[in-house]
Amino acid sequence: MITTQEDYRESLRGMKKRIFMFGEEIENYVEHAMIRPSLNAVAMTYELANNPAQVELMTVESNLTGKRVNRFTHLHQSTQDLVNKVKMQRLLGQCTACCFQRCVGMDSFNALDVVTYQMDQELGSDYNPRFRKYLAHVQTENLVVDGAMTDPKGNRKLSPSQQADPDLHVRIVRENKDGIFIRGAKVHQTGAINSHEILVMPGRSLKEADRDYAVACAVPADAAGIIYVYGRQASDTRKLEGGRIDVGNYQFGGHEAVILFQDVFVPREWVFMCRETQYAGDLVELFAAHHRASYGGCKVGVGDVLIGAAQAVARVQGTEQAAHIKDKLVEMVHLNESLYACGLAASYEGRRSPAGTFMIDGLLANVTKLNVTRFPYEIARLAQDIAGGLLVTMPSEKDFNDAEIGPLLQKYLVGTDEFPTERRQRLLRLIENLTLGTGGVGYLVESMHGAGSPMAQRIMLARLADMDAKEACALKIAGLVDEG
Amino acid sequence: MITTQEDYRESLRGMKKRIFMFGEEIENYVEHAMIRPSLNAVAMTYELANNPAQVELMTVESNLTGKRVNRFTHLHQSTQDLVNKVKMQRLLGQCTACCFQRCVGMDSFNALDVVTYQMDQELGSDYNPRFRKYLAHVQTENLVVDGAMTDPKGNRKLSPSQQADPDLHVRIVRENKDGIFIRGAKVHQTGAINSHEILVMPGRSLKEADRDYAVACAVPADAAGIIYVYGRQASDTRKLEGGRIDVGNYQFGGHEAVILFQDVFVPREWVFMCRETQYAGDLVELFAAHHRASYGGCKVGVGDVLIGAAQAVARVQGTEQAAHIKDKLVEMVHLNESLYACGLAASYEGRRSPAGTFMIDGLLANVTKLNVTRFPYEIARLAQDIAGGLLVTMPSEKDFNDAEIGPLLQKYLVGTDEFPTERRQRLLRLIENLTLGTGGVGYLVESMHGAGSPMAQRIMLARLADMDAKEACALKIAGLVDEG
Amino acid sequence: MITTQEDYRESLRGMKKRIFMFGEEIENYVEHAMIRPSLNAVAMTYELANNPAQVELMTVESNLTGKRVNRFTHLHQSTQDLVNKVKMQRLLGQCTACCFQRCVGMDSFNALDVVTYQMDQELGSDYNPRFRKYLAHVQTENLVVDGAMTDPKGNRKLSPSQQADPDLHVRIVRENKDGIFIRGAKVHQTGAINSHEILVMPGRSLKEADRDYAVACAVPADAAGIIYVYGRQASDTRKLEGGRIDVGNYQFGGHEAVILFQDVFVPREWVFMCRETQYAGDLVELFAAHHRASYGGCKVGVGDVLIGAAQAVARVQGTEQAAHIKDKLVEMVHLNESLYACGLAASYEGRRSPAGTFMIDGLLANVTKLNVTRFPYEIARLAQDIAGGLLVTMPSEKDFNDAEIGPLLQKYLVGTDEFPTERRQRLLRLIENLTLGTGGVGYLVESMHGAGSPMAQRIMLARLADMDAKEACALKIAGLVDEG
Amino acid sequence: MITTQEDYRESLRGMKKRIFMFGEEIENYVEHAMIRPSLNAVAMTYELANNPAQVELMTVESNLTGKRVNRFTHLHQSTQDLVNKVKMQRLLGQCTACCFQRCVGMDSFNALDVVTYQMDQELGSDYNPRFRKYLAHVQTENLVVDGAMTDPKGNRKLSPSQQADPDLHVRIVRENKDGIFIRGAKVHQTGAINSHEILVMPGRSLKEADRDYAVACAVPADAAGIIYVYGRQASDTRKLEGGRIDVGNYQFGGHEAVILFQDVFVPREWVFMCRETQYAGDLVELFAAHHRASYGGCKVGVGDVLIGAAQAVARVQGTEQAAHIKDKLVEMVHLNESLYACGLAASYEGRRSPAGTFMIDGLLANVTKLNVTRFPYEIARLAQDIAGGLLVTMPSEKDFNDAEIGPLLQKYLVGTDEFPTERRQRLLRLIENLTLGTGGVGYLVESMHGAGSPMAQRIMLARLADMDAKEACALKIAGLVDEG
Repeated sequence: MITTQEDYRESLRGMKKRIFMFGEEIENYVEHAMIRPSLNAVAMTYELANNPAQVELMTVESNLTGKRVNRFTHLHQSTQDLVNKVKMQRLLGQCTACCFQRCVGMDSFNALDVVTYQMDQELGSDYNPRFRKYLAHVQTENLVVDGAMTDPKGNRKLSPSQQADPDLHVRIVRENKDGIFIRGAKVHQTGAINSHEILVMPGRSLKEADRDYAVACAVPADAAGIIYVYGRQASDTRKLEGGRIDVGNYQFGGHEAVILFQDVFVPREWVFMCRETQYAGDLVELFAAHHRASYGGCKVGVGDVLIGAAQAVARVQGTEQAAHIKDKLVEMVHLNESLYACGLAASYEGRRSPAGTFMIDGLLANVTKLNVTRFPYEIARLAQDIAGGLLVTMPSEKDFNDAEIGPLLQKYLVGTDEFPTERRQRLLRLIENLTLGTGGVGYLVESMHGAGSPMAQRIMLARLADMDAKEACALKIAGLVDEG
Repeated sequence: MITTQEDYRESLRGMKKRIFMFGEEIENYVEHAMIRPSLNAVAMTYELANNPAQVELMTVESNLTGKRVNRFTHLHQSTQDLVNKVKMQRLLGQCTACCFQRCVGMDSFNALDVVTYQMDQELGSDYNPRFRKYLAHVQTENLVVDGAMTDPKGNRKLSPSQQADPDLHVRIVRENKDGIFIRGAKVHQTGAINSHEILVMPGRSLKEADRDYAVACAVPADAAGIIYVYGRQASDTRKLEGGRIDVGNYQFGGHEAVILFQDVFVPREWVFMCRETQYAGDLVELFAAHHRASYGGCKVGVGDVLIGAAQAVARVQGTEQAAHIKDKLVEMVHLNESLYACGLAASYEGRRSPAGTFMIDGLLANVTKLNVTRFPYEIARLAQDIAGGLLVTMPSEKDFNDAEIGPLLQKYLVGTDEFPTERRQRLLRLIENLTLGTGGVGYLVESMHGAGSPMAQRIMLARLADMDAKEACALKIAGLVDEG
Repeated sequence: MITTQEDYRESLRGMKKRIFMFGEEIENYVEHAMIRPSLNAVAMTYELANNPAQVELMTVESNLTGKRVNRFTHLHQSTQDLVNKVKMQRLLGQCTACCFQRCVGMDSFNALDVVTYQMDQELGSDYNPRFRKYLAHVQTENLVVDGAMTDPKGNRKLSPSQQADPDLHVRIVRENKDGIFIRGAKVHQTGAINSHEILVMPGRSLKEADRDYAVACAVPADAAGIIYVYGRQASDTRKLEGGRIDVGNYQFGGHEAVILFQDVFVPREWVFMCRETQYAGDLVELFAAHHRASYGGCKVGVGDVLIGAAQAVARVQGTEQAAHIKDKLVEMVHLNESLYACGLAASYEGRRSPAGTFMIDGLLANVTKLNVTRFPYEIARLAQDIAGGLLVTMPSEKDFNDAEIGPLLQKYLVGTDEFPTERRQRLLRLIENLTLGTGGVGYLVESMHGAGSPMAQRIMLARLADMDAKEACALKIAGLVDEG
Repeated sequence: MITTQEDYRESLRGMKKRIFMFGEEIENYVEHAMIRPSLNAVAMTYELANNPAQVELMTVESNLTGKRVNRFTHLHQSTQDLVNKVKMQRLLGQCTACCFQRCVGMDSFNALDVVTYQMDQELGSDYNPRFRKYLAHVQTENLVVDGAMTDPKGNRKLSPSQQADPDLHVRIVRENKDGIFIRGAKVHQTGAINSHEILVMPGRSLKEADRDYAVACAVPADAAGIIYVYGRQASDTRKLEGGRIDVGNYQFGGHEAVILFQDVFVPREWVFMCRETQYAGDLVELFAAHHRASYGGCKVGVGDVLIGAAQAVARVQGTEQAAHIKDKLVEMVHLNESLYACGLAASYEGRRSPAGTFMIDGLLANVTKLNVTRFPYEIARLAQDIAGGLLVTMPSEKDFNDAEIGPLLQKYLVGTDEFPTERRQRLLRLIENLTLGTGGVGYLVESMHGAGSPMAQRIMLARLADMDAKEACALKIAGLVDEG
């Protein structure tokens, strides 16, 4: 069982994964300078669980094993569990200022449990006990599981089976009595390389013609036939420069990868959906609802860091008492807390599924996410306003360290004389990281597209809002019911 | 005890109040065409409590009497009580499309209970039992109580005692062994004329020099020396025209009044604060927090009506399937539910006070209200967009009823031929009411200024947000704590 | 020739129009309390032309007669003419704080001149000289002409000839050698009752099946068969109350009417389009472009008044030095000037048509209007923020005049003691008028729908923006042209 | 005289500048991979001037020499010149998708000409002829001149002479009969390294105590004592990777540098202000006005590229016909053209200064810039929305070129099969560049802070808006002038 972050690193060292980056296959990925920050962020999910002050938030008694497990592996058994999830996510956002990558797995577990239970009820299958057995293992070992949902999709107007290339969505290509073989790719795979397991799920609702695409299953992250290709991020190679300042967030970061499945074998006991197309849509929707609410936690935590950095840099620059600066900070707080309020409300309004596992409120979860596609952008804009132009014109830390020009830069780029110039450097680099660098990938573009692009949320809002009830209220007030 | 809405009307008939409107003293205010809609809205707080489907939301077991009481008179004993309050408010908004006026009293009770308890603890006074005795009476009789907080204020740069005229904030002008005499005025008094009781409270934090202004007490709404002056609203006199269409919302409406206190006597047993200036600020803040969260319920209910009306009128006009119309409706829903999410979150995150009564989460309550100063305006703008120009160019209902031109207007102002022209008339008049008429007073300007103007919320956000913690997060991530 | 505003009033007294309001036929409309303010606003277009300081802006040498004419009757002969039009409109907005109603005619002239010229070139007709003869008469007599474009439209999914009722768009119902007979209605007719002439035009692009709907012609506003039905506005009957304060803007206002054409005869010499369906779309588009840019003038002028009122009331209330108040005023100015900048740019970038008359830049005109559907709403919201809650809770002026309560209201509703309470009353009533009353009809809803609803502007933007050129730029920068 | 871009490169090769980057002194900066793209962008200002289609926009007859000169060296002699400047800037933005760096110099010339003329009029000095002689030389040689205004500023609450370190603003440290010696630094120096000349100006208004800081003068960019330190940008080192795709914009880019002045000698004939503190504020304000309007050209051109890229990538991904995608593109166009309209209006409304050189309209120039601090952010957000998540998760071009995984990435990351995967790669990298990479530095943060941060614009709006006139309008309408 993985308990400490060192256990976690060690557990990964034992996994041989094929990983490509910049056209080369990576050997020691656990120590790789590009990957390490993202691994550190996952490691925080272990480390905080050992922190007595956070143990209540980070761990919970499992309904499967009766033991205390890391909340990232838990099936939520109450609305309080849903709320604690959001609070845990905010905490981790505050501690890492990036995506800590373990939420997709958690949100997948909770969706898959509910849907497999429903399948078993309706089809007489035994997917749910099979899945719960798997999850008990995950809980006991405290594993990191990558929920792999998004297919490349090719031409978005065509269904999986209509595509020119049938592999553009992951599918079952062969089958034998022991198991199935899957082929395809999953894109935008957050933290994939830092995972022990890959939990494959369909990426959209499916029709009968798409039968082979209705597949949910788990494979070890180092299974034969899996290749990872590391995704680039803005300013990513600053991590390779050796310094600690220009990178903005030296310790932490996120990553996404493309996962290629080259006819990967999955033993039958790890298959949780196999051609039951009618459940694919529900699974996606349930997962998405959980994950959309999650953003009301994690992005709020990152927002806290950005707000804090903006205030700190204002202090260094001597502007923190200006009315317009204070007003901008208040606006940032307001937007950030609005996101949090939505995440909390979606959680508190959750309800028990027949499986016993709790589901988030779908309408409010989509409201949360739709706000997440907007407010972080405005928070980032305000942070850049407060930061000032030096945010994007400051020389490199190597220049600050140069014998000739270093002292000159120290002299000229000082703010108020209370603070050393380096404090200004570090804070501006952090703001740059979060609004125009690797951190901006997670804080902005992932806020836009993670768990579905904004149009997906709008479609759900149109579906979930009870428009008839609203119209009925209006007709009654307008005198068109009794008096019409 | 008042049970039915007819009881309520009858109870008011027994009260002789001095009320002025348009320069004349009003006699039978209970039947007055201007006031009746607002009285109907209050009556709904009784009527719905008798509706078996709503009884759980509308009533609750009192911690004071052990009996089931109307929730508007209740001291919240759990976060679920706080949540149910918001849900009840949304329901009433949906049923009345206006301000139903009974929230200020409820929010005042909950603030006053907490503060008087604290006073007793710290001062050895007996204000809390006194107040609870009063409230038990309110619960038992099921009374409507106007929470009277806002003073005229005069020159806002000056404190009450510094004003040229000392009466610009309500104060104790005399005192004898039986009680006190108060003078001054309270403005923006929502539903004052429909109330049985006036609960006077200070309107701002106070200093020692303002001692006589630190007064909280209850008086019957028809006490000697009280005069009400009815406040005008946009399009108010449509209520006097006799029709049922142009008024937009024939049944319901809100009202505000100026209350003049001409040396009104208050017996000592109904005095709950008497010159303890140090508690005035807390009382205002606690009340404001409750009331700010309330707007995450009531305005959302009114928003539901407006959204429903917009969809209904689009249907009449044959535009309901246009992509841009559907998108605008989704946006309206999104904004409306964002407000609701904030109101819910502030409630769920509430916590028990030493008095046992539950307090709302202050930060989230202020976030709720600040959003309320924005989103209803955008919802209204979108409703006007969907409604089309006829919203403000349609002839009067009397024209539609005219023998010569009525049929011509019916002919020409029809939408799709599925619906009679009158349906369009009524829906447009409802949208006009809510966005540019009497309903707009409550839905827009009251959303802006009720429970304090937006700047008041910003000041509270600045105070309640833990900016130091955010800065600490940022400094840590920036390497300025360990590595600085 | 009409020179003074008294001439103008006199000229209208000579016209017998059938006008309905509140179900009754109006006799002396020139002196009617409901209509008078709107007539006063039109009268300002004469009055300012006699003001030596404004004569350059208000009058211009006619290319038709060589004489100096009121600019509202002019065919623009240069981009400077287009610019001066916008500046004149801002001036009139500042002087009336409402719609002064004479722009639709002016914008119609300029569209019709260009299109009739094109028709003559292509068809060999003589519409343009006919129209110019008519316009020379309008210029010489200095007439007010209502441009009548918007049909009721019925079911918006159907073309005019497809409607269940063929009269839902104005059409030629009969014809003889002397002229044509038209039937139908025009809605949202700004200032119709204050006009000397009605200039009828088609309201949309037409297909061959809609031939009888392709009609442009002029009729005297009191022609037999024309009936006007006055449109209601928020708070409209305050004009009938006799006071000068609660009405907000005592002197000025706008109005819209429905015009019913009951088989109205039009002599052939006043017919400028007769079944040439292929030109209907161009005419509408050209008119709309001019009128959309006009809003970058008139609404900006009204905005100036609202901004001024907000600052003035802040001064009365003693808040004018608060940082957040100053910031809101700056924001209002910024938004208002952004609208003006768009109106100016659309004008300066205009170009000469083959007819010699200048056309506005279509893309920028639509940009102007689309901003006008947004910024006035935000300006209004900010004005309400600055105004405070008394905006919607203040008693009537009759109450202020009452012997008993008047002095009490004066006492309690004073702001800083520098100013009498009446100043506060008047300013708040003006802000109420502009944001929630009759003025709000023009400043807000007309800004939304006048000259076409926002979706119409978006469609034009999609059509007029050179998207291919933008894509070509992008492909080149992306290395997809030379290097692809 | 520099005519072609090759002349330009050659001219720079002849200049020995001390340049630091990443802690090392750069030798051949003209060929340096980091600097080359920015140099290419400047080169476009020469290249387009040789393009017959653009010669009217790019060149103009000089009022100084009577010869046709590059517009970037011109003193605007008409509002048409001001307009053409904005149009030229939009063109260059479209052709480079970055900052082309030559505007600051141009805007400085026009400010300095007006202010030196005024100085001469008032002081009897001969600064203007001296400056014009200098400028004639610049025109004749067709030089690139860096306008150097922004000082490091240190503690913003203190004036230059109050700072702990007197060097935090550039100042005269010594003087002899031949000239002056200046010390200090200028930050955010756009294109400094690509310049032939540095035109130093004061960076703020000054008081008598700051006499030595009131200095304007020109020095060759390779004068003794000048050191440049290159500023970092997001993703800057992608330029060093050798590929052509991941860099997003292979050909073009901007740069900023810190310039250190180590007691640099300036001969007297190149000194244009020397301790006349009273003119410093005017100079800054005039420059800022010109430069703020400039953003209504250049950023609009970059916006065109981003809009084009968004449409092109939608086409590749098969979403270009979705209603919401089309609507987002329209919104982007609308915002972009709103900026352009402001830039044009500020130019058209310019006016002649006593020097003959034309000044921009200050109010509208500030309105332009304030919109520039907002709209590009929203355009960028919409571009990211349209782009989809692959924008930030796509593997490197080296991975696409790898023998094993390259073909797999080609296979899986294809969009519609009409286009090769590389087209998608290139377009997404361009959007990444502009919204989260080196291009985002110029398109976003420079839009925020260039020519002054938004608060500076707000302060100018408060100063330039005629608030008294607006208040007077309001008082008149409210009946407070005649009737008060």
